[in-house]
Amino acid sequence: MEFLDQLKNLKEQLKFESSFGSVRPFSNIIISGMGGSGIAGSIFSELYDRSPVTVVSDYNLPAYAGPDTLFIGISYSGNTEETLTATREAVRKGCQIRLITSGGELSELGEKTVIIPSGLQPRSALGYLLVPFLRSFMNFNESDYEETCRILSGLDAEHREARELAETIGREGSIPVIFGHYPYRWVAYRWKTQFNENSKILAFSNFFPELNHNDTVPLKSTYRKDAFRFISFGDASDRIEKRIEITSRITGTDFVRVHVNGKTLLQKLFYLIHYGDYVSYHLAKYRNIDPEEVSVISSLKDELMH
Amino acid sequence: MEFLDQLKNLKEQLKFESSFGSVRPFSNIIISGMGGSGIAGSIFSELYDRSPVTVVSDYNLPAYAGPDTLFIGISYSGNTEETLTATREAVRKGCQIRLITSGGELSELGEKTVIIPSGLQPRSALGYLLVPFLRSFMNFNESDYEETCRILSGLDAEHREARELAETIGREGSIPVIFGHYPYRWVAYRWKTQFNENSKILAFSNFFPELNHNDTVPLKSTYRKDAFRFISFGDASDRIEKRIEITSRITGTDFVRVHVNGKTLLQKLFYLIHYGDYVSYHLAKYRNIDPEEVSVISSLKDELMH
Repeated sequence: MEFLDQLKNLKEQLKFESSFGSVRPFSNIIISGMGGSGIAGSIFSELYDRSPVTVVSDYNLPAYAGPDTLFIGISYSGNTEETLTATREAVRKGCQIRLITSGGELSELGEKTVIIPSGLQPRSALGYLLVPFLRSFMNFNESDYEETCRILSGLDAEHREARELAETIGREGSIPVIFGHYPYRWVAYRWKTQFNENSKILAFSNFFPELNHNDTVPLKSTYRKDAFRFISFGDASDRIEKRIEITSRITGTDFVRVHVNGKTLLQKLFYLIHYGDYVSYHLAKYRNIDPEEVSVISSLKDELMH
Repeated sequence: MEFLDQLKNLKEQLKFESSFGSVRPFSNIIISGMGGSGIAGSIFSELYDRSPVTVVSDYNLPAYAGPDTLFIGISYSGNTEETLTATREAVRKGCQIRLITSGGELSELGEKTVIIPSGLQPRSALGYLLVPFLRSFMNFNESDYEETCRILSGLDAEHREARELAETIGREGSIPVIFGHYPYRWVAYRWKTQFNENSKILAFSNFFPELNHNDTVPLKSTYRKDAFRFISFGDASDRIEKRIEITSRITGTDFVRVHVNGKTLLQKLFYLIHYGDYVSYHLAKYRNIDPEEVSVISSLKDELMH
């Protein structure tokens, strides 16, 4: 599938109906996933707050992992070494296991595995990776999913502002720094990773109000400030909106404010995710770079096997 | 106290003997703290793995917070609005409350509060903020604390390499990007925040192996790469060491490798924290900037009150 078609596939992915099925009671959730797969877990961890959720982006599980733990392993390819190692440890420790993958070794490690379609870049499969969490643990209704699809279709058809932001960044040759806020902290990180892999540029993220305790001083006094383009999102609480406004004013920093379309959390979340997809895509095009190509990662994996 | 004396005070802080005292059984820990105070909680969360630990760097607590939760609120000043809001919510929800502060409103919210000396910048009080966690939940012995003090004294007396790294960064006018790894992921973030507030420059952090799933592609292909200085730490597992070596080689990126002195986790952790203190301090000096001054933060707090 062409990369642009992969991006446009996001709305179809929301129609994916699989969930994790019934689960025994648990006292904590541990999610294992790296990069584009792990982000699904991180976004879920920001939305779900009925028990502690820890996202492990490494090889090993914390010592408390055990029968009271619902372990969810995510790897689009099913062959991510960190996730395979963590999942095997979860099995040994008697965790309740659920997995999301398109195949690979991971699909052989659990009894209840959500199998999702293959053939996409992992970062283009965020819908497939996230929907099982949403359908299992969050109560969005069907009309909300349908309206979200409609909003994503609208963005597919018309995303001039996202393209213009990409062209601004490309013209400047600037490094994006995305300042999110709850419930979009991990969407900011998602934007960072899409700039990294689609546009092949460095990018960074942080979130309000935490960044008021570290990045705010250098926003006023750093060197190389014009190497960066600062981005923040709309749909903030009054308190956070005030923080964004004051931070901008007292440090003399322009924030590109990305308006958030949609009425519900589900709609706004996917709108903002998809908006970032298009900014990173158009920046790749502006740079004459293939947004899909990530051969460095393949080289790294090859070298790690020797 | 002069800022350099504040840095040198770290070894004294390790002699601080307060702990949280006895605690009822709990099933999860929630730590609330922002910026330089929150980092103590984050570093602890990386070391402690006998129950889930969530660090909240925002106003609100997750819904699961309740009587089974050990809530630990940290604010050096005792007047951080996010931490005060979160702590009041923790009290309302019946969490078991422990607090660390030098005073302020926070000191009036809990029955068992660790009061630490005032008069420092919060970021210069990391020893005071971290030791109650270590003495309550980790089993480092007294001779280990003593040897750690000795190692910090050594750094206070001789840190030429840290100064040279600072001067390299200052001469280039480069933006540090610190790539940590377990158990130093949050030490990398601590370095970032020390560059932010002491040196007044932007800085960013990420960690292996997660960064192999996002930053690795741009390390090969980004524009503006020479605006950055990439730093990683020693004392990595064989697998992570291999990742660092391959990432450097296939992306053509020089990493400044910071050697980690010390024999035990406690020694290595504080050595690496303190090494970063000195790099950020000497970079401020190189830039003719007062490392202590953070008046932007005060302005922000003033404006937030109106």
